[in-house]
Amino acid sequence: MLSTMQDVPLLISRILTHGSTVHGTSQVITWTGEGEPHRRSFAEIGARAAQLAHALADDLGVTEGDATATLMWNNAEHVEAYYAAPCMGAVLHTLNLRLATEQLVWIVNHAADKVVIVNGSLLPLLAPLLPQLPTVEHIVVSGPGDRSLLDGARPRVHEYEELIAGKPTTYDWPELDERQAAAMCYTSGTTGDPKGVVYSHRSIYLHSMQVNMAQSMGLTDADTSLVVVPQFHVNAWGLPHATFMTGVNMLMPDRFLQPAPLAEMIETERPTHAAAVPTIWQGLLAELTAKPRDVSSLHQVTIGGSACPPSLMKAFDDLGMRVCHAWGMTETSPLGTVARPPAAVEPGSDEEFAYRLTQGRFPASVEARLTGPDGAHLPWDGESAGELEVRGPWIAGAYYAGAGTGTGTGTDAGGAPLRPADKFSEDGWLKTGDVGTISPDGFLTLTDRAKDVIKSGGEWISSVDLENAIMSHPDVAEAAVVAVPDTKWGERPLATVVLREGASADLEALKAFLAGKVAKWQVPERWTLIEAVPKTSVGKFDKKVLRRQYADGELDVTSF
Amino acid sequence: MLSTMQDVPLLISRILTHGSTVHGTSQVITWTGEGEPHRRSFAEIGARAAQLAHALADDLGVTEGDATATLMWNNAEHVEAYYAAPCMGAVLHTLNLRLATEQLVWIVNHAADKVVIVNGSLLPLLAPLLPQLPTVEHIVVSGPGDRSLLDGARPRVHEYEELIAGKPTTYDWPELDERQAAAMCYTSGTTGDPKGVVYSHRSIYLHSMQVNMAQSMGLTDADTSLVVVPQFHVNAWGLPHATFMTGVNMLMPDRFLQPAPLAEMIETERPTHAAAVPTIWQGLLAELTAKPRDVSSLHQVTIGGSACPPSLMKAFDDLGMRVCHAWGMTETSPLGTVARPPAAVEPGSDEEFAYRLTQGRFPASVEARLTGPDGAHLPWDGESAGELEVRGPWIAGAYYAGAGTGTGTGTDAGGAPLRPADKFSEDGWLKTGDVGTISPDGFLTLTDRAKDVIKSGGEWISSVDLENAIMSHPDVAEAAVVAVPDTKWGERPLATVVLREGASADLEALKAFLAGKVAKWQVPERWTLIEAVPKTSVGKFDKKVLRRQYADGELDVTSF
Repeated sequence: MLSTMQDVPLLISRILTHGSTVHGTSQVITWTGEGEPHRRSFAEIGARAAQLAHALADDLGVTEGDATATLMWNNAEHVEAYYAAPCMGAVLHTLNLRLATEQLVWIVNHAADKVVIVNGSLLPLLAPLLPQLPTVEHIVVSGPGDRSLLDGARPRVHEYEELIAGKPTTYDWPELDERQAAAMCYTSGTTGDPKGVVYSHRSIYLHSMQVNMAQSMGLTDADTSLVVVPQFHVNAWGLPHATFMTGVNMLMPDRFLQPAPLAEMIETERPTHAAAVPTIWQGLLAELTAKPRDVSSLHQVTIGGSACPPSLMKAFDDLGMRVCHAWGMTETSPLGTVARPPAAVEPGSDEEFAYRLTQGRFPASVEARLTGPDGAHLPWDGESAGELEVRGPWIAGAYYAGAGTGTGTGTDAGGAPLRPADKFSEDGWLKTGDVGTISPDGFLTLTDRAKDVIKSGGEWISSVDLENAIMSHPDVAEAAVVAVPDTKWGERPLATVVLREGASADLEALKAFLAGKVAKWQVPERWTLIEAVPKTSVGKFDKKVLRRQYADGELDVTSF
Repeated sequence: MLSTMQDVPLLISRILTHGSTVHGTSQVITWTGEGEPHRRSFAEIGARAAQLAHALADDLGVTEGDATATLMWNNAEHVEAYYAAPCMGAVLHTLNLRLATEQLVWIVNHAADKVVIVNGSLLPLLAPLLPQLPTVEHIVVSGPGDRSLLDGARPRVHEYEELIAGKPTTYDWPELDERQAAAMCYTSGTTGDPKGVVYSHRSIYLHSMQVNMAQSMGLTDADTSLVVVPQFHVNAWGLPHATFMTGVNMLMPDRFLQPAPLAEMIETERPTHAAAVPTIWQGLLAELTAKPRDVSSLHQVTIGGSACPPSLMKAFDDLGMRVCHAWGMTETSPLGTVARPPAAVEPGSDEEFAYRLTQGRFPASVEARLTGPDGAHLPWDGESAGELEVRGPWIAGAYYAGAGTGTGTGTDAGGAPLRPADKFSEDGWLKTGDVGTISPDGFLTLTDRAKDVIKSGGEWISSVDLENAIMSHPDVAEAAVVAVPDTKWGERPLATVVLREGASADLEALKAFLAGKVAKWQVPERWTLIEAVPKTSVGKFDKKVLRRQYADGELDVTSF
């Protein structure tokens, strides 16, 4: 039987039109670092997005499917670009300004970006790279910054405000296929070239609805959201779209991401919601401790990117800021889970706090399963640990092939598979690379990265759990546990330990200390003292260095 | 550029699987009229829906696309049928037990229902009709009622519990096309045969997300929803699906829809949300006035179907029950608008109350426009009145052709158009038949039905506004205004008035009374005194009788 429903596509232009009319008085507030912040209504954003689209189409020759890049902070103009490019049928490509310049060059070339819209303050980063970016035909500059850096630039240079001035303030947005590309974002993998994830209108639309569902962030026009998470980081977790869907005001920090201005904007603009990674909140907490301010407006703080330390969560509770964990990744748009405890749990109880420390609960649109060491799917019992695999309408099923190279399957121009077996299951689920458990009521607890887990005799041992157990000994400054080959068990854990100055404990004492803290069969037989745990550029344990050092016999290992 | 997102369909089976696992402990609570209500967890509902699907497929021969009807009250078994039929690929057809029996027979035959699942208490309605229902092969009876009424019935008769007993409690739900039919509902139009609206998996899924968005009903697992609106009335406004998406408990009144049991279930089960038409709430208010009870748990009462009188809204405010207007119709799934005032409006103010009395605000997925008497689209200025037209992924674009008769376009077997020009615009929008205004911030105020509005010289006059103005005179008991032909203006209003006993006012006085209350050009020239306004079977003014009486010269009209 056929449905009699209208066949209306889920398009970002619908979100824009809705937001700029029904919620036309809602605002994007951009911090300027001096005096009053800049305020622009959703109605103005809608008019200017239309003007930008006309400029892209008429003056810069952007047509359907063309990649239009942004190298920008969070601000009103970046929101305009968020709508102009996808609504006209082009593809918004947000460039991560924290990347190494070689990666940035690689990504721009892989996406074949035709236009780059850039904040003036970021010209020192972009200008030197232009000779290596042959696809870029136009540079559009917005906001303060030294334009002379672009003198002699090969691409044509435009001033953002001059470019859009006088253009029509409405645009007859095309009725696109909802599965068409709308935006793209590259993952900065630790190995290999970056991988492009291409979001569709459909995926972004559905994700925006989910963000606004009461069980997720539940935002309405009564909210102002402080969007600290960068717009180049998985679409700022979907907030620029979700806010237009329900009239949520956006407070944008632009380049003022330091604790002091963040504290000031919270105190003066009184946002009700904020979203950022834990590092930002650690800095803010230190700032608020040194110089107390009224941050009580923030009744919902979404923390993702990595786990929020319990101490930080408690500290924010004491300040009246309620932290809510969320988990996701570039490949998941990113909303995968949100840690709202079940309603039956008593507020303020230890049980509630334990729920808040999980990564969160899956919404209906994100199917999840755990795959164990032998490939079997594991029960949701809160104990069986496996690699998390997810499926859903806003979850990636492949990586981008590169401009002009095909269909999203097979390999890209360089021969790399677009559905690598370590990232996608045979039946099309995304392998997240995260290892953890799921409780019967659908709460995810991540314990390790799949590449760091120790596969011992058909069971998995969490390296993170072992590290935490060892580091709870007062004499231990740092500990990293890595898998090493073992003839009997396949893999076994190697404990590498950094002792505190003046420590008296030895390795035997540390091993004995683990009794009762972890299962007996998980206790490492191999131990070594090291000077310091090798770290990556962002300060994470660099376990591949330890594995290599072990393989090369560089570590002095005691087995007992 | 191609998106790299997974192509996952939006299916009702996903809602069921999610609800019965992640929210497996949430409950459907069915009132029994005596002692403890019956409680069934979402996990049990999921298992029993799978059992029912196996029974439908294996024992009753239901296959993909077959219409499976329900003639049931709101209860747990009805929820099971809501999931079993659509998830397996069949089509749930909810039969309205309030319809005239001729309409019921017509509808069952038009949909070619193969199975009817019926509550035992409704056998007195169904049994006598069976000889006229040749497509019905199976009757499945659930709950108390006299089975002997089915003695000698032609279709095979089954007991619901016996039918599902022993069947597997899981079902490998098929991966359907999301645009496939999932459920159907017939509109009981005032003229012509009923029209079938066929919802898709996609439309129901998206509608469920919208219901749970914070700006709409915003329900979570902290809520218990008292679902008074019948499951045969536009899918109980989407609640049986929306609740499984976020774990909302459902409180189901079964056949106990009288004010006293409703008051009792509110007091004892403490629902946080309720949904029903105003008539139900009028009765409940009288009950609560006569016998006060604690109804303070109800912080959100969704009222739709027709407008809530301001006095009723205020009375419920005083009881701590917050009424929220919503507007929709069978063709809109039904969520069209929800009257949550803008956040900037002061709570408790007259302005806020005025917003609450509107039909509400459109969400992003419902596009709206007003079409004036000349076919032009009118501005959203809160003043220009036109017929409301809507468009969106859960809005009907046609009516059902009938079993085996085609594609949803053209005409049905009886020659009736499936996209009649008075219901669908040429570009595919649904013409709602409602006339009203839209404010700049997207709030809809309905003033009249399109068929009752007076089209005078290219402007529209609301019959309802004139009636309210005339009825505000103390001597007037009732007044109905209808359009009559006028050579100069096309149409002009005719005022028909019923005076109170002992009234002294005459028609001239009434006409003079309108000065300043309505625009001068809207004041009727034609007036008549009548004994009583003719009414329909449900008590609404029957204006077509008045129009006919005027045309036939039966009314004694004074023109001045």
